[in-house]
Amino acid sequence: MPEANNAAVIASKAQRASASPHLRDSMLALRKVAPQRGFERREIAVPNFGPSEVLIRVEKAGVCGTDAHIYDWDKWAQKRIKPPLTIGHEFMGRVAACGATVRSLSVGDRVSGEGHIACGICFLCRTGEAHICEHVKIIGVDRDGCFAHCIVMPEVNVWKLDPAVPDEFAAVFDPLGNAVHTVMAAGVSAKSVAITGVGSIGLMAIPVARAAGAASVYAIDVKPAKLELASRVGADEVFLGSDPNLVDEILKRTNGDGVDVLLEMSGSGSAIDRGLAMVRNGGRAALLGIPSDTININLAERIIFKGLTVLGINGRKMYGTWYQAQALVKSGRVDLRPIITHILPFDQYDRAFELMSSGAAAKVVLDVKGDLAE
Amino acid sequence: MPEANNAAVIASKAQRASASPHLRDSMLALRKVAPQRGFERREIAVPNFGPSEVLIRVEKAGVCGTDAHIYDWDKWAQKRIKPPLTIGHEFMGRVAACGATVRSLSVGDRVSGEGHIACGICFLCRTGEAHICEHVKIIGVDRDGCFAHCIVMPEVNVWKLDPAVPDEFAAVFDPLGNAVHTVMAAGVSAKSVAITGVGSIGLMAIPVARAAGAASVYAIDVKPAKLELASRVGADEVFLGSDPNLVDEILKRTNGDGVDVLLEMSGSGSAIDRGLAMVRNGGRAALLGIPSDTININLAERIIFKGLTVLGINGRKMYGTWYQAQALVKSGRVDLRPIITHILPFDQYDRAFELMSSGAAAKVVLDVKGDLAE
Amino acid sequence: MPEANNAAVIASKAQRASASPHLRDSMLALRKVAPQRGFERREIAVPNFGPSEVLIRVEKAGVCGTDAHIYDWDKWAQKRIKPPLTIGHEFMGRVAACGATVRSLSVGDRVSGEGHIACGICFLCRTGEAHICEHVKIIGVDRDGCFAHCIVMPEVNVWKLDPAVPDEFAAVFDPLGNAVHTVMAAGVSAKSVAITGVGSIGLMAIPVARAAGAASVYAIDVKPAKLELASRVGADEVFLGSDPNLVDEILKRTNGDGVDVLLEMSGSGSAIDRGLAMVRNGGRAALLGIPSDTININLAERIIFKGLTVLGINGRKMYGTWYQAQALVKSGRVDLRPIITHILPFDQYDRAFELMSSGAAAKVVLDVKGDLAE
Amino acid sequence: MPEANNAAVIASKAQRASASPHLRDSMLALRKVAPQRGFERREIAVPNFGPSEVLIRVEKAGVCGTDAHIYDWDKWAQKRIKPPLTIGHEFMGRVAACGATVRSLSVGDRVSGEGHIACGICFLCRTGEAHICEHVKIIGVDRDGCFAHCIVMPEVNVWKLDPAVPDEFAAVFDPLGNAVHTVMAAGVSAKSVAITGVGSIGLMAIPVARAAGAASVYAIDVKPAKLELASRVGADEVFLGSDPNLVDEILKRTNGDGVDVLLEMSGSGSAIDRGLAMVRNGGRAALLGIPSDTININLAERIIFKGLTVLGINGRKMYGTWYQAQALVKSGRVDLRPIITHILPFDQYDRAFELMSSGAAAKVVLDVKGDLAE
Repeated sequence: MPEANNAAVIASKAQRASASPHLRDSMLALRKVAPQRGFERREIAVPNFGPSEVLIRVEKAGVCGTDAHIYDWDKWAQKRIKPPLTIGHEFMGRVAACGATVRSLSVGDRVSGEGHIACGICFLCRTGEAHICEHVKIIGVDRDGCFAHCIVMPEVNVWKLDPAVPDEFAAVFDPLGNAVHTVMAAGVSAKSVAITGVGSIGLMAIPVARAAGAASVYAIDVKPAKLELASRVGADEVFLGSDPNLVDEILKRTNGDGVDVLLEMSGSGSAIDRGLAMVRNGGRAALLGIPSDTININLAERIIFKGLTVLGINGRKMYGTWYQAQALVKSGRVDLRPIITHILPFDQYDRAFELMSSGAAAKVVLDVKGDLAE
Repeated sequence: MPEANNAAVIASKAQRASASPHLRDSMLALRKVAPQRGFERREIAVPNFGPSEVLIRVEKAGVCGTDAHIYDWDKWAQKRIKPPLTIGHEFMGRVAACGATVRSLSVGDRVSGEGHIACGICFLCRTGEAHICEHVKIIGVDRDGCFAHCIVMPEVNVWKLDPAVPDEFAAVFDPLGNAVHTVMAAGVSAKSVAITGVGSIGLMAIPVARAAGAASVYAIDVKPAKLELASRVGADEVFLGSDPNLVDEILKRTNGDGVDVLLEMSGSGSAIDRGLAMVRNGGRAALLGIPSDTININLAERIIFKGLTVLGINGRKMYGTWYQAQALVKSGRVDLRPIITHILPFDQYDRAFELMSSGAAAKVVLDVKGDLAE
Repeated sequence: MPEANNAAVIASKAQRASASPHLRDSMLALRKVAPQRGFERREIAVPNFGPSEVLIRVEKAGVCGTDAHIYDWDKWAQKRIKPPLTIGHEFMGRVAACGATVRSLSVGDRVSGEGHIACGICFLCRTGEAHICEHVKIIGVDRDGCFAHCIVMPEVNVWKLDPAVPDEFAAVFDPLGNAVHTVMAAGVSAKSVAITGVGSIGLMAIPVARAAGAASVYAIDVKPAKLELASRVGADEVFLGSDPNLVDEILKRTNGDGVDVLLEMSGSGSAIDRGLAMVRNGGRAALLGIPSDTININLAERIIFKGLTVLGINGRKMYGTWYQAQALVKSGRVDLRPIITHILPFDQYDRAFELMSSGAAAKVVLDVKGDLAE
Repeated sequence: MPEANNAAVIASKAQRASASPHLRDSMLALRKVAPQRGFERREIAVPNFGPSEVLIRVEKAGVCGTDAHIYDWDKWAQKRIKPPLTIGHEFMGRVAACGATVRSLSVGDRVSGEGHIACGICFLCRTGEAHICEHVKIIGVDRDGCFAHCIVMPEVNVWKLDPAVPDEFAAVFDPLGNAVHTVMAAGVSAKSVAITGVGSIGLMAIPVARAAGAASVYAIDVKPAKLELASRVGADEVFLGSDPNLVDEILKRTNGDGVDVLLEMSGSGSAIDRGLAMVRNGGRAALLGIPSDTININLAERIIFKGLTVLGINGRKMYGTWYQAQALVKSGRVDLRPIITHILPFDQYDRAFELMSSGAAAKVVLDVKGDLAE
């Protein structure tokens, strides 16, 4: 009988030979080593990779609120995270080695990566909806992440970067992708848009919405400092969430009808309630912010009578969102520099989490690139 | 200077001459005469009509849950209804007279009518979304309704019936339209569909969903009698809402993924929660049932992580839904006879409300046609 | 029996009293008086208007290629136009008097108008598609137009202008609406766009596409002067249609795939062929330009194998396009000033047509406002 | 440095051991051996397969018009086909062996397969549009096909069959998929549908359209025998393409407006012209039939003024169409038995092509299953 041919093995040997020479066997990684607060930066082995995977040398990595939850070891983290684990899911770097069957990437390619590793087999994966695959594993959460000198990724999850994308933007393509997916799912072309909650993704959504054609963008948050940033990155007007006349103010600016589109990025029950109240009948609301608990909602008044379309948003479309994000960045109309408030060396990770918890930072990027040469 | 020409007046005289001869000046109408329980059938004047309105002799009228709320004089009714008022919003009949500028209708035309009188001027009315006009007036709720020998309707709200549509189906085109709008907004072609709540609209949604191309229809209700009817009108399988394994049973039948589409027609908080739980990731939920209060919902688990699309459904598209409803009835694939359980003479209206409150009836139609000849 | 009430007549008297006082009985109008080349500016009676119509004093009016066809009395004009007729369909002005049943407008309102008078009764009119009503009558083509001191319009066709819209932009909301409808139907948000043919509508489509979120806009025309204007109004790059490497040049700039969207505004058979060739598989092509004859097309290669979506574009959505156009102009991102190359007094209409036929003008606006005071 | 692990090799050995035992080394295959008319059935080696591929024992295979083109060695075939080549692209069978990295399939699985082998890397493949990948290779056209005892397929292209799908239906899931993709892309729910050209795919589109919710289906062909079959599988009415009143007859049945949807499956220029003429303004036309040459078309009258949406249809969505096709077959509402007019033993392949060219057959299925046991 015929045999599976051994192309895989041959290719693997060839590629190993062409991999970055003199790569060391061990590397530094930011790890949750025990079920308690904090991280440790430890020397561990550079991981092995399968025939359809690549090894990437991480250069820059973004710090996300999710990382802070894991750092703080809150309830969600205690339930989800199984130490020991390397943290981090936003990054850019360069391909260091390719598995045997890898065709679309070469050693040296400058890349970012989609951190949701989908199963590839289920109905959703097979119909263009891999971003909501039920069997997804997330890097830095369910498997080793990118706060390390190297990370292993499936070929299909690797995004080859256009030269026009700056390194620090590429490092945060994951949250930028959340913003782009939310904006594009809602559809903002020639529409009025309200954004409730301008943390780092909400802030990114502002230039994204403008570049994607929003006629007007109103930003709402409880923190004045965030609103100041929101104005800098292109919000037409900003509003304090605590303003008792908030909904009326929005109605005043939208001919009494309300905005066409709500982008909900706070996860706060009251923001969701007021956000829905400020959408016009027949409008659309895209929900990205994750409430930490159940919320009380007047479905009749807020959604049903208004004929609203409400979209649950998760992750980023694989890989439509990545193409859109790159196109928007390349067009020069999405500038993330005011949002990336800090770029810190790898060993200052504790300070990164302090800056985030104090609210002093919008987006922090770690300069992870290590010396891996022997 | 030029004058508005007097075509309106001339046309009016001509049409009056051609109106049903010997029409009497008074008629019987089912009225809420005082802020208390019950209705009274009284002799009142046949109403006047404006240049762009028509007078319709009602023949058959459907009784709706909303009418029962007004009959019972519950909290909602006390807040919304201003007696005296003629009740009723589902009907068919014949045009008895036309206002001066009416072009699309003639005396004798067999018609049904859209009971939502939209303003015609606002953004929504001018962009094909009149069904969610904020200034809508509803017949039988905000202005005199159809439980009467005659009703006045704006020309634009009148639907000329195809001869193939039976009278009793035409009398319930309003709730059939709710069912059709919900089904078509959700999109069921080649999809698996769960319906939570099979009152009269939920029941109608079953043959509508099948005719519109649903691959499978699962009906869920707390009342076994309704489930029996659901099976008769085409549900593939029916389930008691009280079944603790309900969600698992649905998952079993849908490859573990859940249904593609939920049509929520109960307004019950727990049905909404379990209904959303049984929709697959990336699926769609159309909400028509109106919760009487706020509900508690786990937005993260039920909508956001799943990437669901949730549609608030109100009324019927003007007039796309009417064309679709008529096309589906004409195709012979939507048979409402098992759902119209009772046709009663006009004077037995009290019995109609008893049948409805006891759950013995699905849809009751009143035979309203009176002797208006002098 | 009841009578149609006489609200119409009463309202009419009241409004006539409040109409612009001292309005003269006659006015100047640019007319096709006989089946031959040219127009004549003649004194004619100010027209009467019906109960649902308004009389508008025209202030500024745009000159369109269609008007030039009528001026030149070409084959199409000979077939379609029945002299005598007042020409013109792009305008802005102020309401001078309202018919009896008019509710949404008042004397003095600053307005533009949708020149497609739809029947209001047919399937398309009743389902939000009035712009493709088969019974449409166009002002300046099928009934008297706007190159006159006054024009009569149905209330529903009148667009009340936002104060932020400059007069000369308002005068060309009709062709701007063509551009907006084409752009929005195609959908350009975060997409690469090619425009074949940058006459006045093609030129308008450039800032509209950019404002609506296009990631890149490539403009193509056979006339270098038009391409220069295209660059001025925001095209990323411009290409001569005669360039034999045109398609390759576009592929080079789009990763070898082709553009996401083609906006075809030339009506030229070869432009259509090459335009379709430069769209990526799965892309969209919106066709607005009207070929004067049948064209030869390789359906298999250009549309079927590529899985293209091709949209026929006609008129403007009533009135979604108007809301979008106004929102885009108000956002400050659609500046038509470089496109409106000439504003001429009413009596220089012959020069307007010379400028257009010579190609020296992009869009010409006539200052029509006359002295109507007695 | 780390190595690509050798999971691939290990898995391969394990799976080889579990493959159908006693599989022979050679098999029969229907081959184009030389650039001339006809096929030969020859003994050739059972093919090797890669780590992400499976070997399938073919049981039943459908004969397509494309196969007939290759048999006849017409112009298209001479240009596209490089002998020697095994022909055939419609089939079902059972998995005989799996490559090392195959996870979703096991030996013995009953399967059909998507014959378009997409590159998996390009923009289209990465955004859910692999069916229009520009680098596609088609089995039986660009690489060895399924008219053989065995075929090698990439894991991702294999469709695991639901037990409810009969073998002979599974054998024609490829053309059924064309029909389903066309119907679903057009959208037929509650709509009137005309189908021009009822060859085997056009015939399949009839029950598919009905099951997917079409309110009415009109079938048009030049061959009365095909129209008879069309009636048997559910067309409401059938029309000869040669009828000079064809368009008027369709208009008569659609309220003078025309059908909502055209499914063009003939590839004939005149059918396309008349088909487009019978679509209502604002309707949709899905083009699957492939004209053998350029055609002449009045774009203005047929597409632009009507505001039509025209969809080029190619292949089947990977793999949304497959889920839909299976759901429709499982619902019991798509019965292909009247369309599969002949099931012939493998060695009667010449007769299959005779039956097809004479028009005596609609769809012919070959019983390919051979004795591969040693």
